[in-house]
Amino acid sequence: MNDIRLVAIVLLSAATAATAADDGKLTYPADYREWIFLSSSLDMSYNKLQAMMGHSMFDNIFVDPKSYREFVKTGNWPEKTQLVMEIRGATGKGSINQQGKYQSGEPMGIEVHVKDSARFPGGWAFFAFGGGTEPAQALPQTAECYSCHQQHGAVNTTFVQFYPTLLKIATQKKTLSPHYLP
Amino acid sequence: MNDIRLVAIVLLSAATAATAADDGKLTYPADYREWIFLSSSLDMSYNKLQAMMGHSMFDNIFVDPKSYREFVKTGNWPEKTQLVMEIRGATGKGSINQQGKYQSGEPMGIEVHVKDSARFPGGWAFFAFGGGTEPAQALPQTAECYSCHQQHGAVNTTFVQFYPTLLKIATQKKTLSPHYLP
Repeated sequence: MNDIRLVAIVLLSAATAATAADDGKLTYPADYREWIFLSSSLDMSYNKLQAMMGHSMFDNIFVDPKSYREFVKTGNWPEKTQLVMEIRGATGKGSINQQGKYQSGEPMGIEVHVKDSARFPGGWAFFAFGGGTEPAQALPQTAECYSCHQQHGAVNTTFVQFYPTLLKIATQKKTLSPHYLP
Repeated sequence: MNDIRLVAIVLLSAATAATAADDGKLTYPADYREWIFLSSSLDMSYNKLQAMMGHSMFDNIFVDPKSYREFVKTGNWPEKTQLVMEIRGATGKGSINQQGKYQSGEPMGIEVHVKDSARFPGGWAFFAFGGGTEPAQALPQTAECYSCHQQHGAVNTTFVQFYPTLLKIATQKKTLSPHYLP
């Protein structure tokens, strides 16, 4: 193999490694804790009857910095956007804390919402990593998260209504979905 | 004034503007939402009897990226570290949410914890910005936050015990304060 072909293959591998492993799986975004933080929540549920099975949990939402900067400019997500939801245990009593909840321990798992209109019907797919870091397969398009995000997402099927700094930008840029009434 | 002196003064001004306004006040860290997120909490209190005055609030903690990278390497904070605590309102019912709490609205204020051993007794000072962005004066060293952080901070008077990713690093690097027992 000549050097130019080899270089081309190496570059191509580097370019695709960021979002997709060879078989359509998503590579674990190892550095997401250094991405841009969007917001956090405690024990949210979209279902009145849903039990948390005794667990109290925080969600932390991060987005890759490049897509964040594009959202700040335009109020919308570019192709290849990755939003990470990290789930962490919520602790009440510990150290000097007496009330409320703080985050503790290892992540209980992460889920990633990826925009790639060329690959996914509806433009986006969800990937769940559980507690591991092995490449993950996309959740099937029949999973509830897809229809719920399409019906209720404030911007381009994403829950910007729960990210106060982005909600302000989307309102200013007039990119809120028609079905979303703030 | 010759050009070299002018350049020197401009450079000096740029170097100090990041942490201190002319009169010892701290400049508002306008880009802290793009710093590294450490953790968040809901309605924490170190006092059993303290009422939240009817408010439910999230705290989000951020650190400047340069000091974060140093902590990852050494398990301790370098000079000029700035930790930001942002306070945001917690909302229960909104959009499709039925349970738990998410963040909404404008920040209710930020507080900044700054390390500068040459300037502050004990090495650190707190600055409270309330809801504004005007340069802030350091809180007096008699304020309760100083003694509480000195007595209970897991690393160098900071509450690393509430930041799970950093607690792991400090444990590995053996930089936990002697008084802190995990």
